[in-house]
Amino acid sequence: MVKDEMGKMKVALLGATGAVGQRFVDMLNKHSYFELETLFGYSSAGKRYGEAVNWLLPTELPEEIKEKNISAVNTKDLDVDIVFSSLPSSAAKEVEIKFAKEGFPVLSNASAYRLHEMVPLVIPEVNPEHLEVIDAQKRELGTEGFIVTDPNCSTVGLSLALKPITNLYRVEKVVVNTLQAVSGAGYPGVSSLDIIDNVIPYIEKEEEKIGNETRKILGRLENNSFKDYNVKIHASCNRVPVKDGHLENVYLELSEKVDLDEVKEEIRNFIGEPQKLKLPTAPEKPLIIREEKDRPQPRFDKLAGSVPGMSVTIGRLRYGKNEKTLLFSLLVHNTIRGAAGCVLLLAELMKVKGFI
Amino acid sequence: MVKDEMGKMKVALLGATGAVGQRFVDMLNKHSYFELETLFGYSSAGKRYGEAVNWLLPTELPEEIKEKNISAVNTKDLDVDIVFSSLPSSAAKEVEIKFAKEGFPVLSNASAYRLHEMVPLVIPEVNPEHLEVIDAQKRELGTEGFIVTDPNCSTVGLSLALKPITNLYRVEKVVVNTLQAVSGAGYPGVSSLDIIDNVIPYIEKEEEKIGNETRKILGRLENNSFKDYNVKIHASCNRVPVKDGHLENVYLELSEKVDLDEVKEEIRNFIGEPQKLKLPTAPEKPLIIREEKDRPQPRFDKLAGSVPGMSVTIGRLRYGKNEKTLLFSLLVHNTIRGAAGCVLLLAELMKVKGFI
Amino acid sequence: MVKDEMGKMKVALLGATGAVGQRFVDMLNKHSYFELETLFGYSSAGKRYGEAVNWLLPTELPEEIKEKNISAVNTKDLDVDIVFSSLPSSAAKEVEIKFAKEGFPVLSNASAYRLHEMVPLVIPEVNPEHLEVIDAQKRELGTEGFIVTDPNCSTVGLSLALKPITNLYRVEKVVVNTLQAVSGAGYPGVSSLDIIDNVIPYIEKEEEKIGNETRKILGRLENNSFKDYNVKIHASCNRVPVKDGHLENVYLELSEKVDLDEVKEEIRNFIGEPQKLKLPTAPEKPLIIREEKDRPQPRFDKLAGSVPGMSVTIGRLRYGKNEKTLLFSLLVHNTIRGAAGCVLLLAELMKVKGFI
Amino acid sequence: MVKDEMGKMKVALLGATGAVGQRFVDMLNKHSYFELETLFGYSSAGKRYGEAVNWLLPTELPEEIKEKNISAVNTKDLDVDIVFSSLPSSAAKEVEIKFAKEGFPVLSNASAYRLHEMVPLVIPEVNPEHLEVIDAQKRELGTEGFIVTDPNCSTVGLSLALKPITNLYRVEKVVVNTLQAVSGAGYPGVSSLDIIDNVIPYIEKEEEKIGNETRKILGRLENNSFKDYNVKIHASCNRVPVKDGHLENVYLELSEKVDLDEVKEEIRNFIGEPQKLKLPTAPEKPLIIREEKDRPQPRFDKLAGSVPGMSVTIGRLRYGKNEKTLLFSLLVHNTIRGAAGCVLLLAELMKVKGFI
Repeated sequence: MVKDEMGKMKVALLGATGAVGQRFVDMLNKHSYFELETLFGYSSAGKRYGEAVNWLLPTELPEEIKEKNISAVNTKDLDVDIVFSSLPSSAAKEVEIKFAKEGFPVLSNASAYRLHEMVPLVIPEVNPEHLEVIDAQKRELGTEGFIVTDPNCSTVGLSLALKPITNLYRVEKVVVNTLQAVSGAGYPGVSSLDIIDNVIPYIEKEEEKIGNETRKILGRLENNSFKDYNVKIHASCNRVPVKDGHLENVYLELSEKVDLDEVKEEIRNFIGEPQKLKLPTAPEKPLIIREEKDRPQPRFDKLAGSVPGMSVTIGRLRYGKNEKTLLFSLLVHNTIRGAAGCVLLLAELMKVKGFI
Repeated sequence: MVKDEMGKMKVALLGATGAVGQRFVDMLNKHSYFELETLFGYSSAGKRYGEAVNWLLPTELPEEIKEKNISAVNTKDLDVDIVFSSLPSSAAKEVEIKFAKEGFPVLSNASAYRLHEMVPLVIPEVNPEHLEVIDAQKRELGTEGFIVTDPNCSTVGLSLALKPITNLYRVEKVVVNTLQAVSGAGYPGVSSLDIIDNVIPYIEKEEEKIGNETRKILGRLENNSFKDYNVKIHASCNRVPVKDGHLENVYLELSEKVDLDEVKEEIRNFIGEPQKLKLPTAPEKPLIIREEKDRPQPRFDKLAGSVPGMSVTIGRLRYGKNEKTLLFSLLVHNTIRGAAGCVLLLAELMKVKGFI
Repeated sequence: MVKDEMGKMKVALLGATGAVGQRFVDMLNKHSYFELETLFGYSSAGKRYGEAVNWLLPTELPEEIKEKNISAVNTKDLDVDIVFSSLPSSAAKEVEIKFAKEGFPVLSNASAYRLHEMVPLVIPEVNPEHLEVIDAQKRELGTEGFIVTDPNCSTVGLSLALKPITNLYRVEKVVVNTLQAVSGAGYPGVSSLDIIDNVIPYIEKEEEKIGNETRKILGRLENNSFKDYNVKIHASCNRVPVKDGHLENVYLELSEKVDLDEVKEEIRNFIGEPQKLKLPTAPEKPLIIREEKDRPQPRFDKLAGSVPGMSVTIGRLRYGKNEKTLLFSLLVHNTIRGAAGCVLLLAELMKVKGFI
Repeated sequence: MVKDEMGKMKVALLGATGAVGQRFVDMLNKHSYFELETLFGYSSAGKRYGEAVNWLLPTELPEEIKEKNISAVNTKDLDVDIVFSSLPSSAAKEVEIKFAKEGFPVLSNASAYRLHEMVPLVIPEVNPEHLEVIDAQKRELGTEGFIVTDPNCSTVGLSLALKPITNLYRVEKVVVNTLQAVSGAGYPGVSSLDIIDNVIPYIEKEEEKIGNETRKILGRLENNSFKDYNVKIHASCNRVPVKDGHLENVYLELSEKVDLDEVKEEIRNFIGEPQKLKLPTAPEKPLIIREEKDRPQPRFDKLAGSVPGMSVTIGRLRYGKNEKTLLFSLLVHNTIRGAAGCVLLLAELMKVKGFI
């Protein structure tokens, strides 16, 4: 292990200048476990980070990060414990496996390997036990490196919200409609000409991701083989002129009558291993219930939680036409809990549990 | 009948300065059947229309309308053939019945009487036969006056889209999610502080309206009694920062396997009485199907159709997880087809068919 | 003096539910000098604050404030040391003088008395010496009460930015163009229908205010009489679809050639009494200079400063066509430094200096 | 001359898929003088236009245009009378001169040659006499080809508005502040992440362009040499979240006292050669004055005029601090009158006057 003088683990970041990459940089700043050692870039390689990045966050970019040089993507002489990836999917496909084969643990926010049969797709509070497949993956690769992934931003919100409900009941059907923020498309991403005074009822590949990923996350790992949770998921995804925060309207059918109060109680009390282990990026409550009639909303709830942006807010929880159907709305900060924050929390969990 | 020198019927308008009222004024300008005779207002009574109104439309307000005086709401000396109403529901409750009892046909966009057992709730292409209840209503009121209503803006889009599908199949369940424009809330309506960079997952009473109204519209009139269409409708309504045009994502469950091509064909060929009668405000096609992967969108489709804003655009028509489920998105111009235009088309139909 | 058990001064707030009123409530929460004792309202009187207010801020409204009852506006039995006012101007005209005559110090953000010959119009860092007129005002009123005002939100930004420049040079002419946020119009304020995909080149009375108030603030108090700073100010004010933060583009003509570096240095080093006295709401630097070519921007700079929103950011400082002309852009948070924060800082200064 | 069977001139278009290119395509559709023969593209060469373009306009793209193939940029075998260019400036520099040297008249909206001493920079109503330099330019190039340009979108609005005023008075100083729409930056242009709930007080090179171009346009051509109009112009340019329509706030200093009514009259009566010649794209009035206190606004005025988008709207015309200063706001549709429409009108004028 390559610890620095503070005893921190050293990390590299693939895709450092993108919208999610910037969240990684921001959240890794002064992190108690990890030290951002290497910033990788393609067209930006050779430049200082401060020059190359179009910094989007309200926080000031720290001077020492601004001055850091961006390296060409290369495993040679790389001396880090973890490689975080926020690459576009096409690049990730090729690059992440290369780093894994060279012996690096790759923790990725890219979609390339999420559904791979040997790659865990993990939300730390929901299915940390899926990490157990890593040994088999290592054996397959023949190195100490491996790939672990976190889900698509909309899936994170949905799966987190479903978890406590599936603790109580069998969920048989999900109809989910999303109103997704533009930062979900990266930077520059969505042209202002396309989205001012408009909404777009289509996001490429998003609807399939929500279905496939949610079924994998809520499923079981048995003998190093993933068994999907058996639920029909119908997703319709929309882009809206909001900067941060995906809103999702969820309709559920369950196998039996539901006790609404019991569901609320289960959601309110829901915690996972990150909370038990008091990990630095773990919010006290992964799920927050609001009782107001018009919540959640991006403006109020995107930074919800004791670690801002790491809690998913649930509101308008109500019966449908009968007591075997439930409706609610949820709000997930797409680049924090839905991306960089989820991977970072996963890294913290994996460190404490000895996976890295 | 009170025809003017051009042989046009004279009409009065309740709620003339509101967002829907302005659409009425705009669409009645140079109308071939109707002449806008009387503008009613409460706080604006006594003012000239040009002074009282905060005109929102890109068209210039005609000089002769600007100069018209707004009258206090009163049936005395009222010499018109039809009263259009775009009042808020609370005012409508009291006022519309008064006009009806005084012998005026009231064609209303307000929600107050939509679900009344003697009041037809009509989309001209969908359920014109419901108008037959008017005679019974007149008898009940003991006058020649009566009330006819058109649906909520979101319902218009949904019911129009469902009609050709119900011609082919039994629809058993609908899960509909709306992304509704701010003009749907009237003027001034939604504060900019509430909606810039935000969405709101709640619109008061809208979800119930969509369910109840759609069931009535798709239902039958039997012996002057309305029998609802038997379908479960689960609606989740959202306000988005778009000026005009409601987008709706629709999920359907049907009683049998569906032939997608047949559904498309039925939608494409769908017309109603207004088309057969070539009414002035009837678009050639009430429903337009788009094959692009990312349509409909408010910016492109809100003014769709040969009469701008009178056609509903349907896109992304696809199977769900099996062939008994369908998904699609639709776009309806909320203040044209979804409000003033629907009532106006209804008036045209009623005139031609002798109801007024 | 009416101190509570913590030794804090008790304050009342007029206009507590408005956009600026909410900022007062937020900034007074856990304030070290002041305790919010009484919330006044008109239509909201008798309700709990949590019911009556449409809370707009991302911070959660504290439970104890939610539970507070709103009182009818009345000086009877009022037991506070200070009355803050964020009333609309018309109400302020009548109400503020009543409170002053009853012996209360009224610190107001309303425009009603800003240009009154006995009322100081003060930005704490710019013209605290204007407070000396208070004694004369008290004599005139014949009580211990008085009125003190802070400027219009756009004026605060402009006057703060001009102050260090006027320390070095005579400013002879100002052409200022503003791009003002919707929160400047209060709540509900600007209708979303008026401002989505639009800008409006007019804000009622704003242009005159900027001219008249800036001249008074930069002027002198001599023998209890205000002498305006002699400068021509031409303002053009625009409303833009931004929630918070007024941007102003400023063009200056000076009486002599300007040394740009000297101006920057003077701005960078500029502090006032609040900084010297280390008042709780005083930012370390009232003015921040950015060197990037495209700053300030509302999204990045509205919460600038060690006390978020209390610093004005200046950017793009450059010569015009010759060295006697200067151009720059500034950004002021309109409801913090431009309203509630400015009054609160003023109250802190007045407390420490013994005016209250 | 290469006329088609309808006797129309054939034209080629450089930069056909961009935001301005699309306006050209739209405005050339069914044009009575010109037939769009050749669409040039770089990365899109070889594709059908319907595939390659991300069509942004509300009008439907005509089928025959959708089916047209995009050609690689090449003068070989090119058989057209005119080449329109909406290339980015860097590409224009190299390409336009090549086409001119090969004998083609190039009418360009690019900035590359606007300030060239042999190239006319023309608004058809303002300085058509500058076209006389073309003969000298041809001699210099040694071919029948040449380059003619139209100004930057903001300059078009400013110069058109100033022209009638300079007919009456000497304008000595201009301070102009712009609020520019995102379509001015092309497509995809401004990222939605940069502009939602924000404004940006900087547009690269725009401020210099407004100054330099306006001085050239209002200047004289003497013996084939351009003499700038002698006026100091200070511009500050801002990007705002508006799709179409640049708003400009203008402050003027004149050499003598101004009669405001006379100025209005001159603006109202202002026409140029295009109006006298009744050219197809000439609006009846190039300038429209609005008397409302809050106009012009993008939403209402961007499509002003008898040819939608070809008239500039002026509002809030008023004195400044004395009668030698004037202030007003103007609105110009940046991609119609400010770009494609201006070049097209110029082409019509040049055709009728025999330049092409």
